[in-house]
Amino acid sequence: MDKPLILVTNDDGVVAPGIKALVEVVKRIGNPIVVAPDKPQSGQGHAITITSPLRLKKVDQFEGVESYACTGTPVDCVKLARNILLHDRKIDLCVSGINHGSNAALNILYSGTMSAAMEASIDGINAVGFSLLDFAFDADFSGTQHYAEIIIKRMLESKPQNGTLLNVNIPKLPLVDIKGMKICRQGEGRWIENYKVSEDPRGGEYYWLDGTFQKGDYDEDTDLNALKNGYISIVPSQHDLTDYQNMDKLKHLET
Amino acid sequence: MDKPLILVTNDDGVVAPGIKALVEVVKRIGNPIVVAPDKPQSGQGHAITITSPLRLKKVDQFEGVESYACTGTPVDCVKLARNILLHDRKIDLCVSGINHGSNAALNILYSGTMSAAMEASIDGINAVGFSLLDFAFDADFSGTQHYAEIIIKRMLESKPQNGTLLNVNIPKLPLVDIKGMKICRQGEGRWIENYKVSEDPRGGEYYWLDGTFQKGDYDEDTDLNALKNGYISIVPSQHDLTDYQNMDKLKHLET
Repeated sequence: MDKPLILVTNDDGVVAPGIKALVEVVKRIGNPIVVAPDKPQSGQGHAITITSPLRLKKVDQFEGVESYACTGTPVDCVKLARNILLHDRKIDLCVSGINHGSNAALNILYSGTMSAAMEASIDGINAVGFSLLDFAFDADFSGTQHYAEIIIKRMLESKPQNGTLLNVNIPKLPLVDIKGMKICRQGEGRWIENYKVSEDPRGGEYYWLDGTFQKGDYDEDTDLNALKNGYISIVPSQHDLTDYQNMDKLKHLET
Repeated sequence: MDKPLILVTNDDGVVAPGIKALVEVVKRIGNPIVVAPDKPQSGQGHAITITSPLRLKKVDQFEGVESYACTGTPVDCVKLARNILLHDRKIDLCVSGINHGSNAALNILYSGTMSAAMEASIDGINAVGFSLLDFAFDADFSGTQHYAEIIIKRMLESKPQNGTLLNVNIPKLPLVDIKGMKICRQGEGRWIENYKVSEDPRGGEYYWLDGTFQKGDYDEDTDLNALKNGYISIVPSQHDLTDYQNMDKLKHLET
């Protein structure tokens, strides 16, 4: 039987160590094809490129793996992979990451890594985004690799419904100290922005985004709680943003 | 009593006719302050700018209204408004749009207009995104203005819970033919991409995103159905992407 075709992407760019670590895992399980941004695209969320053209450049980044650098966003990468490179082939799974830094809680909204995975899931492809809670370029991905292999195999073997999307975050711990995996809901929290205000050489004021994430929700079933306690968090995610709980309460707006 | 402070933004840019139409409505109800992108930012989704600085330029776009053009994305506009321009004032409502084109169904994910409104709602500010189902630069916004005034007034008067977010779409119809407003859920559907493949003058291949929206869900309670039948759709929306229905089914991934 053919090995499963696995699309690999990320938002830190095709040369990031995190995607290299993920490709190593995927090579042990299936046939990877890599389509990733040609430059860092963190914080791009679900952005797509509509007012300018896109290019794909074949790169020799991963030994024996067909790989492309894309000039667009992470979501563009998935759209181009699906429509141009793999238009006549079935993608068995899309994996995104390993992201350098957390995409737990609210961060899923800003994350190019997770938006790429979501874009695949919208099209009925099962998809998993992996993020390690370590921003460092030389982060230790070995624990993440161990669990990514388990999760990818289970996603391929257990055949969940089409378009299943997982947001997987891994605590910054040595493999032996990771306590296991937990299915969670997305925790609450928000960013407290702290713009750095500076002046350019001509006296013009500019602002540079900085901030800290204020966790607001450590209920036992949240991803934030799992990570705090040394577990990998797995949040099944989806793209229906309807606030069902408030539909009745807002009925008065109709009349 | 002070008039309510209403932050106005969009994704088509500060010079788009749609935001002008919205500012006209807001001036009748409260004190608008405009912070909108200095160029079109359609399709930017929830993108934020983290690797480069941002600027705000005061503009004289709307008579008697404090207005700024921002070099960033729609979400950047809201963050800068909140943290730099209005850090010591309470924003009573954020309105975004009027978008030139639909943000119904899945389009909410790609929409800078809706992401800007969502960014405000994450911070506990009530927010409404308005979109007219007409891409034309010179679209007729009069029907939208009529209903936007009603919705904005009701949001201010009825005081729904903090962070309430509405995705409002308006059919392309003369005011007299709009049948009313309906509270809906987000319909399903997907984009069928059709990249235009071309060659540059040096023989390099490039791809330009095009596509058609394939509506997949005309159930009576969806926004797509309301719009098809001549109603304005109002989808209460939120930012928790957890797929609660699938949490139990995916429990086997834990062990």
